[in-house]
Amino acid sequence: MALSASLQALLDRFHAGTTTALARAISLVEDEREGFQDFMHEVLKVGPRTARVGFTGPPGAGKSSIVATLATAYRARGEDVGVVAVDPTSPFSGGALLGDRIRMNELTTDAGIFIRSMATRGSLGGLATTTKEVMDLMDAFGFARVLVESVGVGQTELEITAAADTVVVVLVPESGDAIQAMKAGLMEIADVFVVNKADRPGADRLVKEIRQAIHLRAGSALRDVPAHHGVDLSRLGGAGSARAVKERPARAEPQGWEIPVLRTVAQSGDGLPEVLEAVDRHREWLTKSGELGLRRRARARVRVQNVVDRELRRLARHTAASGGRLEHGLDAIVQGAETPYSVAREVLADLLDPEAR
Amino acid sequence: MALSASLQALLDRFHAGTTTALARAISLVEDEREGFQDFMHEVLKVGPRTARVGFTGPPGAGKSSIVATLATAYRARGEDVGVVAVDPTSPFSGGALLGDRIRMNELTTDAGIFIRSMATRGSLGGLATTTKEVMDLMDAFGFARVLVESVGVGQTELEITAAADTVVVVLVPESGDAIQAMKAGLMEIADVFVVNKADRPGADRLVKEIRQAIHLRAGSALRDVPAHHGVDLSRLGGAGSARAVKERPARAEPQGWEIPVLRTVAQSGDGLPEVLEAVDRHREWLTKSGELGLRRRARARVRVQNVVDRELRRLARHTAASGGRLEHGLDAIVQGAETPYSVAREVLADLLDPEAR
Repeated sequence: MALSASLQALLDRFHAGTTTALARAISLVEDEREGFQDFMHEVLKVGPRTARVGFTGPPGAGKSSIVATLATAYRARGEDVGVVAVDPTSPFSGGALLGDRIRMNELTTDAGIFIRSMATRGSLGGLATTTKEVMDLMDAFGFARVLVESVGVGQTELEITAAADTVVVVLVPESGDAIQAMKAGLMEIADVFVVNKADRPGADRLVKEIRQAIHLRAGSALRDVPAHHGVDLSRLGGAGSARAVKERPARAEPQGWEIPVLRTVAQSGDGLPEVLEAVDRHREWLTKSGELGLRRRARARVRVQNVVDRELRRLARHTAASGGRLEHGLDAIVQGAETPYSVAREVLADLLDPEAR
Repeated sequence: MALSASLQALLDRFHAGTTTALARAISLVEDEREGFQDFMHEVLKVGPRTARVGFTGPPGAGKSSIVATLATAYRARGEDVGVVAVDPTSPFSGGALLGDRIRMNELTTDAGIFIRSMATRGSLGGLATTTKEVMDLMDAFGFARVLVESVGVGQTELEITAAADTVVVVLVPESGDAIQAMKAGLMEIADVFVVNKADRPGADRLVKEIRQAIHLRAGSALRDVPAHHGVDLSRLGGAGSARAVKERPARAEPQGWEIPVLRTVAQSGDGLPEVLEAVDRHREWLTKSGELGLRRRARARVRVQNVVDRELRRLARHTAASGGRLEHGLDAIVQGAETPYSVAREVLADLLDPEAR
């Protein structure tokens, strides 16, 4: 489909590498303005190119400091970097300690780095489809690296695997309790573990616990689903698709990647070069092993489902609203004359069989 | 639509009040077995009747103890009670202290109480549509009260308003930090606040903070959205319906309900009669003020959207899978020959315009 004249002009400026065009494109997508899907289609024709690294973990674990340090290191190599922060407590979002904010400000004055802070989806949390679309825009814009920071609260932990090639899980000794509850989920998604604030009591114990958990998992993986691949990405395509088919169920355990467990003190910079090195090494492994293509394919599956579901929800809301059908139906449900199932059936019939109207 | 012979037999036994029929109906819905939506339609023809009370708050706040005590009190009045526990740490789900478990066991030997523990939706959290359907089954089965306990982690806090008429938020002095982050959401959904473990340090401060927050909210409500009604229930209809229309935007502040802030020590039973009384009083207010009908109507809207979205997702997955269209599309996306938007467009065209196939 042809773009409108103004969107075509935006696309041209986007392809020319104008940063303001990237910012405008992000607004276009965030607001779901007329034609944004056609625009995204044009933009994504280049295919995925960038290295996407996700950082997740509890609030206050120091994710932002680590992201800021890594971004600076990439810039020092001459690489352009995009950062997406989905964390209400992140310094990128303005809610942070002064020291952190100063460090972020240094970054934001650099033209080779583009930082976008995104709201979580209201109280619903998680990575919205829009967040992934913003990462796609940064990818298509040509950033060598796109880093995404998201606070780890259930949903997000899994969704970050649908957004990043490499997932870095950041924990702190204080999150010892949390890990009990989150262990299973975190073990499945981490490509690199970072124990930050490693100078505090309990850091040794936490490192040891994580190593043991990885070891146990590696042992059971030989007869079980492989690490990371055990994450049922297709589940992320929609909240109710619990019985969706697993991606690559029959695939063998990927060889050659041992999940490192690194110690850092982000405030002083201790251990951060090792994180940079581990992320680089993981990237190399992803490419060589063919795993990168598989992860991109799994991600594409989620994205198609996201786009389909969003459009269907939009159409269904529109159909339900037309002619006041839903409002009448709600009254009837409260009175016991109809049920959600009979009203839903009418909405679906209207949507799927327009001829019958 | 006519039910199959076996579902009709199940319906007859359900209507006759056979508890095993309720249990089988719940399994039918949980497994989304053939014909479950038609079965639900038949069951719900009686309309909503029961009093639904939701309990939410952080893990370990003592929600289960409070629910157990209230259930016992209702039973003492001769009322049948259904309990749905959506909390992996709940004693109802087996993960709890011995003392709690003994108390639960006393309940479970009572034929007038039916307890169902539901899994959270994997790592996605929240109240699944299925959970609300189980509550509907308990309602239709004829329980005078249906209590739902769900751990408060973001999403769930809001979703409980789409499941209960009365929402009791349970906090403990230790959750003082958590309240900072959750305050806005909790203020909006609570009809009754309970500060449990009120004999611990910090309880006074917490009670005072909550009262202040309620007071502030009441002041701003005159020019802002009213309490509870500020919750955009329609947002819960689907993860992406962020711009859905608010239910009853123009309605005035409901008069006559002041949110009580109660202190309890659930282990000793201190303060629990006051919780029972507050819930009863809220019920009376809901009925007299006409608010009950409005809340049931808002809930029906969410339920219709849930049912429509679930069915559309199912159809979309089926359409995408047919003929290997999606698999080819994914390969093309990774190669940059297609994008998620063009593949989604094909899936949608197939689904919405079968003639064009």
